[in-house]
Amino acid sequence: MDPRKLRVNGKRLQASLEEMAKMGATSGGGVHRLAASDEDKRAWDLFLSWLREIDLEIILDEMGNIFGKRAGKNEKLPPVLSGSHIDSQPKGGRFDGILGVMGTLEALRTLHENGLETERPMMIVDWTNEEGTRFSPAMMGSGAWTGKLDRDLAYGRPDIQGMKFGEELRRIGYRGEQPARRWPIHAYYELHIEQGPILEKEGKIIGVPRGVVGIYWFDIDVEGKANQVGPTPMEGRNDALCAAAEMILKVNGLPARMGGDLVATVGEIHSFPNSRNIIPGKVHFTVDIRSWDDELAIRAWEDLQKDFARIAERRGCPLRSEKTWGVRHTAFDERLVNRVRQAAEELGFSIHPMVSGAGHDAVYLNQVAPTAMIFVPSIGGRSHVEVENSRWEDCEAGANVLLQCLRQSASEV
Amino acid sequence: MDPRKLRVNGKRLQASLEEMAKMGATSGGGVHRLAASDEDKRAWDLFLSWLREIDLEIILDEMGNIFGKRAGKNEKLPPVLSGSHIDSQPKGGRFDGILGVMGTLEALRTLHENGLETERPMMIVDWTNEEGTRFSPAMMGSGAWTGKLDRDLAYGRPDIQGMKFGEELRRIGYRGEQPARRWPIHAYYELHIEQGPILEKEGKIIGVPRGVVGIYWFDIDVEGKANQVGPTPMEGRNDALCAAAEMILKVNGLPARMGGDLVATVGEIHSFPNSRNIIPGKVHFTVDIRSWDDELAIRAWEDLQKDFARIAERRGCPLRSEKTWGVRHTAFDERLVNRVRQAAEELGFSIHPMVSGAGHDAVYLNQVAPTAMIFVPSIGGRSHVEVENSRWEDCEAGANVLLQCLRQSASEV
Repeated sequence: MDPRKLRVNGKRLQASLEEMAKMGATSGGGVHRLAASDEDKRAWDLFLSWLREIDLEIILDEMGNIFGKRAGKNEKLPPVLSGSHIDSQPKGGRFDGILGVMGTLEALRTLHENGLETERPMMIVDWTNEEGTRFSPAMMGSGAWTGKLDRDLAYGRPDIQGMKFGEELRRIGYRGEQPARRWPIHAYYELHIEQGPILEKEGKIIGVPRGVVGIYWFDIDVEGKANQVGPTPMEGRNDALCAAAEMILKVNGLPARMGGDLVATVGEIHSFPNSRNIIPGKVHFTVDIRSWDDELAIRAWEDLQKDFARIAERRGCPLRSEKTWGVRHTAFDERLVNRVRQAAEELGFSIHPMVSGAGHDAVYLNQVAPTAMIFVPSIGGRSHVEVENSRWEDCEAGANVLLQCLRQSASEV
Repeated sequence: MDPRKLRVNGKRLQASLEEMAKMGATSGGGVHRLAASDEDKRAWDLFLSWLREIDLEIILDEMGNIFGKRAGKNEKLPPVLSGSHIDSQPKGGRFDGILGVMGTLEALRTLHENGLETERPMMIVDWTNEEGTRFSPAMMGSGAWTGKLDRDLAYGRPDIQGMKFGEELRRIGYRGEQPARRWPIHAYYELHIEQGPILEKEGKIIGVPRGVVGIYWFDIDVEGKANQVGPTPMEGRNDALCAAAEMILKVNGLPARMGGDLVATVGEIHSFPNSRNIIPGKVHFTVDIRSWDDELAIRAWEDLQKDFARIAERRGCPLRSEKTWGVRHTAFDERLVNRVRQAAEELGFSIHPMVSGAGHDAVYLNQVAPTAMIFVPSIGGRSHVEVENSRWEDCEAGANVLLQCLRQSASEV
């Protein structure tokens, strides 16, 4: 048969996603499948059983990354790799990460049942702990595998109960022997939900990201003076929460002021002592600034610092700020990005060129191999929440685009 | 000797306060002596030993309230009562509450060593769980004793570990047999630190509160839409924390807008999911409004609700608000308030007529007996924090005023 006419089995893809959604299912219709937890282990067990069904060669490395290899005609050529992650956010959704793993599995199943041989080997991968909410940092498995993150540092990271990542991985039986060390990869693809509202709003099926925005994280501490609320007159108060509230609104107004594609968010706040009858004496909050234009993001932060200093001065609430993390924008491989677009168009899907506002394992992979991603719409743009949802036909569409891209890359000699 | 010339022993008062400050001492120089904890028990043991030293008749009631009675010439006359509380805030200070108990003890010691008899019996009291931070509500002991709070409801209140008040009281050996039920009281006095900056600012030694302001508590829930920060454009976001930040600033601006003696504070905030890369989907915060003028406080809340509704509407973040608690202002007994002022003036101390911005056991006592309070300055106005402090000579001054008031009330037939 003409391999361009190959199509994945949408019903089987849906069934696999629904089966996986039982692993850590929440009463709110989402999944709670934190990295290296019992729920993650059950999902990995199921995943391994599915890899064995289509005779893939299984590699489990010391980070818990799981690879399944399908032989090519020429085993000496570097393989084509595709996948994503199985872990979820706390009370997260049924599509984030797992769609890219199940989509790849479905593509390999389709090749398998059609007996289609490819020039290069193909590999599916599940990267460990992409979310980073139980053990920080995020993208731990792909970070270690690409040599950007130290294995032992990762092993030593504790969760809030003090359990260490390395020990938890061993406890659930997924700390492999194979070193987490990269080997040559011909191309890496990652199918993922958009996690934003743009495709839905534009009425498009396939998002073609040219890369990932620059992401800059800051931590702010505002110091006020804790005092009994009743006997302390308004005048002369140093209310750290009021100072923080003004700063939060400055962050929120930053994108309109700076222009461009900037987004800026305060996602986390902790107030101390956080008692209803004590004036807040200390507030910690985070700032997340993202843009494709890294210089714009940096200028925005400089601007913000001036606003913060003025507020701190006026309210008598000195502040300390720290840049916690920062990564410049990632431009994916142009040739692969074009392949995604062409494959989608040949399949008759509407496409939308865009950038990814969120980080993915693909950011690390892009540093060691040509990389591209495929996005499908998120209903209402909702993600990292239990109501996260995507239409089954869009998941199928994304998997078909992936199948064609994998096949084409694997046919290159 | 002329009983008007009697003076407390300031050194002994200081020594008692310093000894008590060891019970639950924190490394930051404060005390952590939560109600019915092991630290509270150790302080109570010490207190009892001191009561026995001056031959007081001890009464321990079923709420853990501890009374020490000094006989009067006429045992049929209702006694004069004075005291405060031994428990502290989490990481609180060395003066809040305990000053009123140690000040009364010092007054009784002075009468004891001078062999001064009074017409009426006198009683010292330590009220259980005034702070209400481990077990809510606050002022539990005095609330039950005055018949305003149900004993079994209090017994059933859990701390954050789920330990119940009644069981903890029994565990530490302070659940007495005597019913917590009021008997006739001729007068109640409570010596306390000001917990505010006014006396220090005015340069006065003794604060004479005519009562306690009205206190109104509200709980607000703001509902936004949690979403990944990167892929979600600024336009169309429903950021619950930004809405809350605007509301917090409205609360802070309320006193200037309403005039009068109003104070308004947001002391507590919780944001969900509180993750740096997720737009806040829900925020809970508290509002505390206080004024001597209850109608002003109620109008302020009505005004605030209109502001809140406008912000909620504009940001697409609906809100629910609830009045959690409210108590109108308390006017103390005029005759006793005048006695406090006169006693202070006769002793040569500068006085400042004022209102109390904080609640005290005296609020409950005022409902069943003529009541007044005596305030001494708080250094820097700081309270409910480890650096809470007062000058020893001011503590002594307050105890001397108390001694004269107690003596005078106890001589009334």
